[in-house]
Amino acid sequence: MRIRYLTFLITLFTLSIFAQKHQANRTAEKIRLIYDVALENGHAYEDLRSLCKDVGHRLAGSAQAEMAVFWGAEKLRAHGFDTVYLQEVMVPHWERGKDETGWIKLPGNNIKKLKPLALGGSIGTEGLLEKEIIMFQHRDDLRAANKEDVEGKIVFINQPMDAKIINTFQAYGGCYPIRGYGAVDAAEKGAAAVVIRSLTLKHHDHAHTGTMHYKDGVKRIPGAAISSKEADWLAQLLESSKEPINMVLNMNCQRFPDKLSHNVIGELRGSVHPEKIIAVGGHLDSWDVGEGAHDDGAGIVHSMEAVRILKVINYQPKHTLRVVFFMNEEFGNSGGLTYAEEAKRKGEKHIAAIESDRGGFTPRGFTVDGSDKHLKLLQSFEKYLSDYDLHKFEAGFSGVDINPLKDVYDDIALFGFIPDSQRYFDYHHNANDVFENVNKRELELGAAAIAALIYLLDQNL
Amino acid sequence: MRIRYLTFLITLFTLSIFAQKHQANRTAEKIRLIYDVALENGHAYEDLRSLCKDVGHRLAGSAQAEMAVFWGAEKLRAHGFDTVYLQEVMVPHWERGKDETGWIKLPGNNIKKLKPLALGGSIGTEGLLEKEIIMFQHRDDLRAANKEDVEGKIVFINQPMDAKIINTFQAYGGCYPIRGYGAVDAAEKGAAAVVIRSLTLKHHDHAHTGTMHYKDGVKRIPGAAISSKEADWLAQLLESSKEPINMVLNMNCQRFPDKLSHNVIGELRGSVHPEKIIAVGGHLDSWDVGEGAHDDGAGIVHSMEAVRILKVINYQPKHTLRVVFFMNEEFGNSGGLTYAEEAKRKGEKHIAAIESDRGGFTPRGFTVDGSDKHLKLLQSFEKYLSDYDLHKFEAGFSGVDINPLKDVYDDIALFGFIPDSQRYFDYHHNANDVFENVNKRELELGAAAIAALIYLLDQNL
Repeated sequence: MRIRYLTFLITLFTLSIFAQKHQANRTAEKIRLIYDVALENGHAYEDLRSLCKDVGHRLAGSAQAEMAVFWGAEKLRAHGFDTVYLQEVMVPHWERGKDETGWIKLPGNNIKKLKPLALGGSIGTEGLLEKEIIMFQHRDDLRAANKEDVEGKIVFINQPMDAKIINTFQAYGGCYPIRGYGAVDAAEKGAAAVVIRSLTLKHHDHAHTGTMHYKDGVKRIPGAAISSKEADWLAQLLESSKEPINMVLNMNCQRFPDKLSHNVIGELRGSVHPEKIIAVGGHLDSWDVGEGAHDDGAGIVHSMEAVRILKVINYQPKHTLRVVFFMNEEFGNSGGLTYAEEAKRKGEKHIAAIESDRGGFTPRGFTVDGSDKHLKLLQSFEKYLSDYDLHKFEAGFSGVDINPLKDVYDDIALFGFIPDSQRYFDYHHNANDVFENVNKRELELGAAAIAALIYLLDQNL
Repeated sequence: MRIRYLTFLITLFTLSIFAQKHQANRTAEKIRLIYDVALENGHAYEDLRSLCKDVGHRLAGSAQAEMAVFWGAEKLRAHGFDTVYLQEVMVPHWERGKDETGWIKLPGNNIKKLKPLALGGSIGTEGLLEKEIIMFQHRDDLRAANKEDVEGKIVFINQPMDAKIINTFQAYGGCYPIRGYGAVDAAEKGAAAVVIRSLTLKHHDHAHTGTMHYKDGVKRIPGAAISSKEADWLAQLLESSKEPINMVLNMNCQRFPDKLSHNVIGELRGSVHPEKIIAVGGHLDSWDVGEGAHDDGAGIVHSMEAVRILKVINYQPKHTLRVVFFMNEEFGNSGGLTYAEEAKRKGEKHIAAIESDRGGFTPRGFTVDGSDKHLKLLQSFEKYLSDYDLHKFEAGFSGVDINPLKDVYDDIALFGFIPDSQRYFDYHHNANDVFENVNKRELELGAAAIAALIYLLDQNL
């Protein structure tokens, strides 16, 4: 009797080992199939071309952003999603003016023309604004300055991103406040305007824009960025000049009343738990220069392509897979906030969300923002994904758009796609962020990595 | 007595733990310093600009290759290497002719011009060569074909690299024989010439060259590549045409007698074991199109910069660090073979060698070709390097130039630098391999990774 029982146990154990191996093999095969479709019959690159060239840049509140909403819904329909719909989002409406320019008055009545780029949300200069320049190497130096030294001048903050930091997003984070809060800091010292060194690690001719903030009770002053090359030139001039140097700025940007726009949503209905949602997305809006190819056209096509691939391989998801094209990440994140509010209002059950908003570069892995259990789950996927050169499976921030879901759900796992970060800030928020600077295979590998993660989450959550 | 002995042992153990920790911290600090110099005060990018723009492409046997030899020796001297010298190497001398062109005769007496690029070492066509085209989708199909179907025709092999393979070098390896041996295969069936689809994963207008081989006893026929776009167009034409289609080829390339050229060598003398050498290198020659920026200008500046950085941080290497710019990797590897022969003849003791010949892209890790002990040693470095996004530490081929050292030394460890491979074959052997397609930070991170590996080897071998 005991021997029969032992035989039974051994048989059970052996069967369980076989079943596990069989399951692991099936998973590996499915992931191989996902990559095959992405690399041989992928749509990500052509979809990105279409978004960049047929639509172009698409600042929230602009007509082209509305074109992108139409584009997104039609693409999701064309790719055969079960349900496609729009979600209302209020967005700011700010427009860069024509004739945005500037120059430096050089000794001997010569001029040097600059190409300043107004920061997003800046007020205009109301005609030519000519003032003496005062330079600061660091935001802290400005904050520590005497008011009488700064009053009535144009503050130039020349703080560069730290090239020594390996992860360029971390270097960006260290410099972000000069763009985000430089106008407030400068106005608190009585400055007439603020001009910052562009947030980039590239030494080139393009200025990089991005949001800036004003503060209630502090005078609103114009804010602009100049290119890293112009910043180096200007710093050298100011350091070597014995005379005060004047800058002239002309910016006609304007803020209009907020407008109605939309998040775009497409779903593949779950076969076992249709009420439980795994969301994947990027942001549809971009800045009003370049084509928003890496930021965040890549995230848009990554998300759509990942779910399309699962459809193409006839995968029946257990949970509902929802692709979300968030509107207005760049200008206050109203799309992400609205999405989370609506999820709460409707009593939707999100179990996971994935965001791609770090560009279309060669994939390195994923971050997870969730519990230890979620981190362990992500790390358990490494065995399936290391063959595809994915090695980073770590705790970390997911993305601006999906982050508000944390406030709605106690037990949601938020994932951020990590591509290689080295080239991102060459293209970020400037005229170089165009389709031609996205590599087809790197983009396709990103879509495949995200599809693989969705598949693994759908199977294991 | 026993207690005192125990106390002594515990003290010894504690001290040893402290010493180990101290050593680990020192190592981590040194590597941080290496990266700081590479990223903040690096010379790799400017050196590469100079090699690409001041010299340009540099096919072994060409005048520009001699210019590169001069450039290399002078750069090594300028960077303060202890010893700089040249090593004689015989190289082939082959020249692409002017007026390299071709066209397809279309029905209705129309023509479509092509931009064929002779493969390295090909004979010319001796005037216009006009023949009917016969297409094969795979080298195996050509080898299985009936001689009477092929005789007197131009063989077109349309075999593409397999996009599904994640490591593009593996995809290249699978396709290499159509370029290397296509002319022999075709001539054995009586063909008049062979035209191949370029070895690339990019759908673009540039043909990619590279070596081809002839075989004693088999007739020598001209060999050329056409771009992937032209190949797709031609395949479609041939598949849809009911009539035979003729191609006209004109190639004036010529082989001249072999010439004398040089490997360029620079050394930093070891302070403890100067007789033991750690070599690091890439190849100085390139193909005669583009600027040899990724292949292998990147490897040249990686190697020089890695050792320069160690010098800048005042590191006194235990072993002699030797930078080698190998001549003629592309056309028979005479530089690498000569280097190994000379090392043997002189009784030099190499303990390790590192090669960078996979481009200047974002670093992923290293391969090692050596004993289990060497693999374990490499893997033990991961703890220092994973913070710098290096995750691949694996057994594998090192590089063509240093590979012959295996035949000289029983116990040498050969390392290959692994950058990300996704974009490499966009640029490989074609007009796009120019300085502008190398990213500054990605290049600098490669030099830092190699400097860190040299430091770790010097400390641990």
